[in-house]
Amino acid sequence: MKKYRRNQRVGALMKIFTERPNHIFSYNYFSELFNAAKSTISEDIVILKGLVTELEFGKIETISGASGGVIYIPSLNDKETSGLLNELCNAFSNPSRIIPGGYIYMTDIFNSPYYSSRISKIIASQYSNKEVDIVVTVETKGIPTALMTAKELDVPLAVIRRNTKVTEGSTLSINYVSGSTKKIESMTLSRRAIKEASKVLIVDDFMKGGGTAKGVKDLMAEFNAEVVGTYVVIATKEPENKLVKDYNSLLILEEVDEENKQILIYPNLKIK
Amino acid sequence: MKKYRRNQRVGALMKIFTERPNHIFSYNYFSELFNAAKSTISEDIVILKGLVTELEFGKIETISGASGGVIYIPSLNDKETSGLLNELCNAFSNPSRIIPGGYIYMTDIFNSPYYSSRISKIIASQYSNKEVDIVVTVETKGIPTALMTAKELDVPLAVIRRNTKVTEGSTLSINYVSGSTKKIESMTLSRRAIKEASKVLIVDDFMKGGGTAKGVKDLMAEFNAEVVGTYVVIATKEPENKLVKDYNSLLILEEVDEENKQILIYPNLKIK
Repeated sequence: MKKYRRNQRVGALMKIFTERPNHIFSYNYFSELFNAAKSTISEDIVILKGLVTELEFGKIETISGASGGVIYIPSLNDKETSGLLNELCNAFSNPSRIIPGGYIYMTDIFNSPYYSSRISKIIASQYSNKEVDIVVTVETKGIPTALMTAKELDVPLAVIRRNTKVTEGSTLSINYVSGSTKKIESMTLSRRAIKEASKVLIVDDFMKGGGTAKGVKDLMAEFNAEVVGTYVVIATKEPENKLVKDYNSLLILEEVDEENKQILIYPNLKIK
Repeated sequence: MKKYRRNQRVGALMKIFTERPNHIFSYNYFSELFNAAKSTISEDIVILKGLVTELEFGKIETISGASGGVIYIPSLNDKETSGLLNELCNAFSNPSRIIPGGYIYMTDIFNSPYYSSRISKIIASQYSNKEVDIVVTVETKGIPTALMTAKELDVPLAVIRRNTKVTEGSTLSINYVSGSTKKIESMTLSRRAIKEASKVLIVDDFMKGGGTAKGVKDLMAEFNAEVVGTYVVIATKEPENKLVKDYNSLLILEEVDEENKQILIYPNLKIK
């Protein structure tokens, strides 16, 4: 069987950890994969611990016990976080994004793997010790950010639909009132999507009145699930009294001035 | 400024490449990041090239010229590919997934970051030399696989909607006939979502009659975009004559036997 050099193992380990953050790998797994003694793998892990700390990639932790092993918990450093938030503000506030009616075209950014994967790192880093069992979002534009956040946290994703689909099996549905338009809408989720007593992190793209987020919370109550956090990429400044109190947003959208072609959006400083 | 040891640079480089496959990084970028001479980085890259080849992670290539640099092109080896396909068949064919009417509950698997990210590696590895400009899918269940594929290929994602949304700006819409139900449906996409003359890879979760895929092709023609591939996770065996001829699928679903609680699904061997 092939043997690998330390350089090679360190590179390979870093790849494996990067592809599956927040997942516990056993020492046995690595030992078999690299055909190396556990003591050798332990030494490799010590090098990796130093590496991720020095380069501010997060941390690698050893968990003892029967279900123990090694876990990589990524984080963005302050410079990367503020850099990303400013980059997003610049992208979103481009006047060419203004759509008649005072809306902003944001779909390309929310769908972007480049942005959604980096946004998810900020969100996930705040919940990596909160024992989230599943990330929940509402179709459609929140899905990329929610999926990437679920990937970062190594948990599944459930997507709430607007209409009942035959391929979802038996479903739970609720009606709710949109916070901004006051229209009655409905949302529905397969009964199979969420296990009893799950801890849920709600992730979505945008919040104005908060009606959707409140609807998701109500639906989660029907599943006997506990909401441990609600995170949106952008929340509007107005109305300040949203239908949910306890939420976080990366950015705050204050104003879209259609006439003067100006969008006022800035990072939400509370996040750090 | 901090200096790093070779082990640390190799680990860090592997992390950076893993997080952004199929992206060209310049030697200058790494040189500044690690505060090291270009010749040092070159030696690091040689080590990484050997590492990814020996461990069958794909390949790292140096591209010369003004816009040159280093690129990591991942691939799954045959064992990983067939392992994943068998794992998927086992998961999908669990009799508890059968829904009255002969449908299968698949949503949790399509939404899973664990599965969608690995599926995307198989799809992307077949298009990494095809100069794909953008991945396109139709809401909702294809989005996770399509997003992960776009991430693997380092390109954006466009999501076709079923209904026109005000936040999409001006849109192009078409009507099409569903291949299996023969109903007239519509799909719509923001004019901003796809640039003129783009090369498009269509990715979706499921194909039965092929009506949706044909609709996407017709819509892409309206954008003057060229479809370079159509990939679905699962295609049904029947009807064999689908409305699109040129497509690929990872798995073939032959039969759902509701009475005997059996699902016949298997890997599509043509993919290798």
